[in-house]
Amino acid sequence: MKSDISGFPEFLPEEQIVFSEVMENIRKKFEFYGFVPMDTPAVERISTLLAKGNDSEIYGLYRLADEKNTSKDLGLRFDLTVPLARYVAAHFGQLIFPYKRYHIAPVWRGERPQYGRYRQFYQCDIDIIGNGELSLAHDAEIILLLTDALQSLGICNFHTRINNRKILSGFLKTFAEKETVTEIIRLIDKIGKISYEEFDKAVLQQKVSDNDLHKIRSFLEIEKRGRNLEVLKWMKTLNFNEEFSLGLLELEETLQLLKKMEIEDSKVKISMKLARGLTYYTGNVFETVLDDFDDLGSIAGGGRYDNLVSAMSDKCFPGVGATIGISRLVPKLLENGLLKANKSAVAELLVTVQCREYIGSYLKIADKLRNMKIKTEVYLHDKNLGTQLGYANKKGIKFVIIANEMELLEGKVVVRNLETRKQETISISTFSEKIPEFMEL
Amino acid sequence: MKSDISGFPEFLPEEQIVFSEVMENIRKKFEFYGFVPMDTPAVERISTLLAKGNDSEIYGLYRLADEKNTSKDLGLRFDLTVPLARYVAAHFGQLIFPYKRYHIAPVWRGERPQYGRYRQFYQCDIDIIGNGELSLAHDAEIILLLTDALQSLGICNFHTRINNRKILSGFLKTFAEKETVTEIIRLIDKIGKISYEEFDKAVLQQKVSDNDLHKIRSFLEIEKRGRNLEVLKWMKTLNFNEEFSLGLLELEETLQLLKKMEIEDSKVKISMKLARGLTYYTGNVFETVLDDFDDLGSIAGGGRYDNLVSAMSDKCFPGVGATIGISRLVPKLLENGLLKANKSAVAELLVTVQCREYIGSYLKIADKLRNMKIKTEVYLHDKNLGTQLGYANKKGIKFVIIANEMELLEGKVVVRNLETRKQETISISTFSEKIPEFMEL
Repeated sequence: MKSDISGFPEFLPEEQIVFSEVMENIRKKFEFYGFVPMDTPAVERISTLLAKGNDSEIYGLYRLADEKNTSKDLGLRFDLTVPLARYVAAHFGQLIFPYKRYHIAPVWRGERPQYGRYRQFYQCDIDIIGNGELSLAHDAEIILLLTDALQSLGICNFHTRINNRKILSGFLKTFAEKETVTEIIRLIDKIGKISYEEFDKAVLQQKVSDNDLHKIRSFLEIEKRGRNLEVLKWMKTLNFNEEFSLGLLELEETLQLLKKMEIEDSKVKISMKLARGLTYYTGNVFETVLDDFDDLGSIAGGGRYDNLVSAMSDKCFPGVGATIGISRLVPKLLENGLLKANKSAVAELLVTVQCREYIGSYLKIADKLRNMKIKTEVYLHDKNLGTQLGYANKKGIKFVIIANEMELLEGKVVVRNLETRKQETISISTFSEKIPEFMEL
Repeated sequence: MKSDISGFPEFLPEEQIVFSEVMENIRKKFEFYGFVPMDTPAVERISTLLAKGNDSEIYGLYRLADEKNTSKDLGLRFDLTVPLARYVAAHFGQLIFPYKRYHIAPVWRGERPQYGRYRQFYQCDIDIIGNGELSLAHDAEIILLLTDALQSLGICNFHTRINNRKILSGFLKTFAEKETVTEIIRLIDKIGKISYEEFDKAVLQQKVSDNDLHKIRSFLEIEKRGRNLEVLKWMKTLNFNEEFSLGLLELEETLQLLKKMEIEDSKVKISMKLARGLTYYTGNVFETVLDDFDDLGSIAGGGRYDNLVSAMSDKCFPGVGATIGISRLVPKLLENGLLKANKSAVAELLVTVQCREYIGSYLKIADKLRNMKIKTEVYLHDKNLGTQLGYANKKGIKFVIIANEMELLEGKVVVRNLETRKQETISISTFSEKIPEFMEL
């Protein structure tokens, strides 16, 4: 993982091959659940980006050729959910609901460079948007797919923390004003990045009394009461208000659904400390963390947002979604050997060229192999065989085809396995049978 | 094809499904030739973007939170070749040469909005970078792969125009200064967008005499002399200078190689009117146009750039590459029925839910089907069966599974083909055999 400009990392080929494979696996998994691809421009109106509040960690755009006169109304998206909401508000008449889409693409955050955080990173988003209504079964399906997608990457030791914004907000409203509630939720989200000392100080600055701060701090520790069932049972005794009770009901139903979906109980844990930073969430929120890498933070997360599209349209399109943050996840898995980057090639076979006048013949051989679904490279530089074999070795291409003029004229080639050194002379006319046999495909 | 902000188009789901499939087909084709994936950040230093000259149709970035104080040194890439050159200059010690990579990603042009051109569009790039040297066989391979990729999309009626910058430049240098040469090449590239009248006027403004303008105009019509062989033969009689002759040699060798690669003669045509806009090309340049859609302009193009990396490093890394402009190509193919967008779903099968208490069972059925590589959606809203079947119909999902409580308890489901109305009761335990049979997979 290299970075030319701080916050804008890029991979070397052997890592990029792995990263692309991960992205492709996730994409396939999303499609197996029937989610359709979506792609929106990286650029949105700044007014859209700011519609539901944001820290203004946004990059605005200006035209280099016309720096002074351009109206600066465009910026780069900071997530894929706000563009989705804008898309649904714009095209709802042509969409079929529930609209289930995935979107795998980069997003940008206009962070200060020295902050040490990514300023561009990939998100793999799945979202379901309903027309007027959206059953909680969709929340559960999103968590199910998230779990399935991570497991398909070979990741097993993880759990998902879950909460409900209505619970947090209902509780906080027992003593705080609406604006204060939003601010405290934002501060809860920062716990971990900021210390409890800093948290306390910041909460007290919101005109919250010492006594109420104490309430907040003990409420945040609710998860210590035991497993989900015990926590739910205890929370049900707290009849704060309607909002709180509704959130509790939603959370309970979601957990029951997850159970029916055979998500292990240990995989989903209620946590009041989970708030999620973005202000558009209205119900369930969740975040997935790797058990073995606490320091990594969440690798996936999402939640329910019932009013995000309404902010841009007069209709009601409740939504729920999640994102997998592969730009953070993949380097960590590589670093710890959970994913292996040991090849600089995607090619499985290299056709070496010994006799340049016959280049057409070598290319025809490659063409034949490609039609047999074998990824095949041809060595086109004018170099001796040793250099060509060295190239295959360095790149991690396991098989090579070698043929001199005589062999070509006889319609034969030598296939060699560079690892075992085993080799065999094969007639080109018997390729379709003999080559897969030799390569053990 | 919709656009919320002019120049930033986006697709509706049924079109996006096709667009994503095209992108995936091209990607696979690139990998079958052994090209490895590459991905660089969308953001580069402006100094990098301007290193080899550009019309400044570039978007610069500023932080919204800090508009005044940010040093505005970052911008969005306008192509994928300049980032490649920067990448090679930065990481050459860790790359294996020849470095063959593909990169499929959007690029941005800071055009005036009213210009009616895309301000964001996708490029599918393939490039080969050599260390110190790069045989012309790579130029030919790039054209071969370009041809193969387009054909794999079902596009057959197209041809590639080819030229060599050394020929153009050698010819122009017989009467013009170096800067004038660059400017005239830029103007040649604009022919079609500007009229010959405008071209003449602009050339004369470059202190070119009437007589020399006449030479240029007649040189541009060289292709009228017949087929490639005749054109080459005639050009060989023009011994302008060394540069010209070298370009001619390169062009001739490339055409010979293409012949050996069995690219039909009619598919590649020499044209002196082909210049390519970007200044970094140094040898062969080429562009592919659809025979039946003249107005579309080029859908793919590229060329040889021997000094692009050197502009950012003290080493010599000659390169050759091409790009397929799918953002223009796909809408045109859709519009003309050459690609069909008739489904809003990627799912092949919908599991309907009649009995919500058994949601776990329906999800297990879906899980089973997904493991059999069938893309399966589950209808999770609480709606009657008619609505659920209507949803499948509207989205173009051909198969549905229907099961009531009784059937679930007996371990059976009904599978129905919504097109033929054929249906069958199948035992869940015999899925792996019976379902593919029913779906004719």
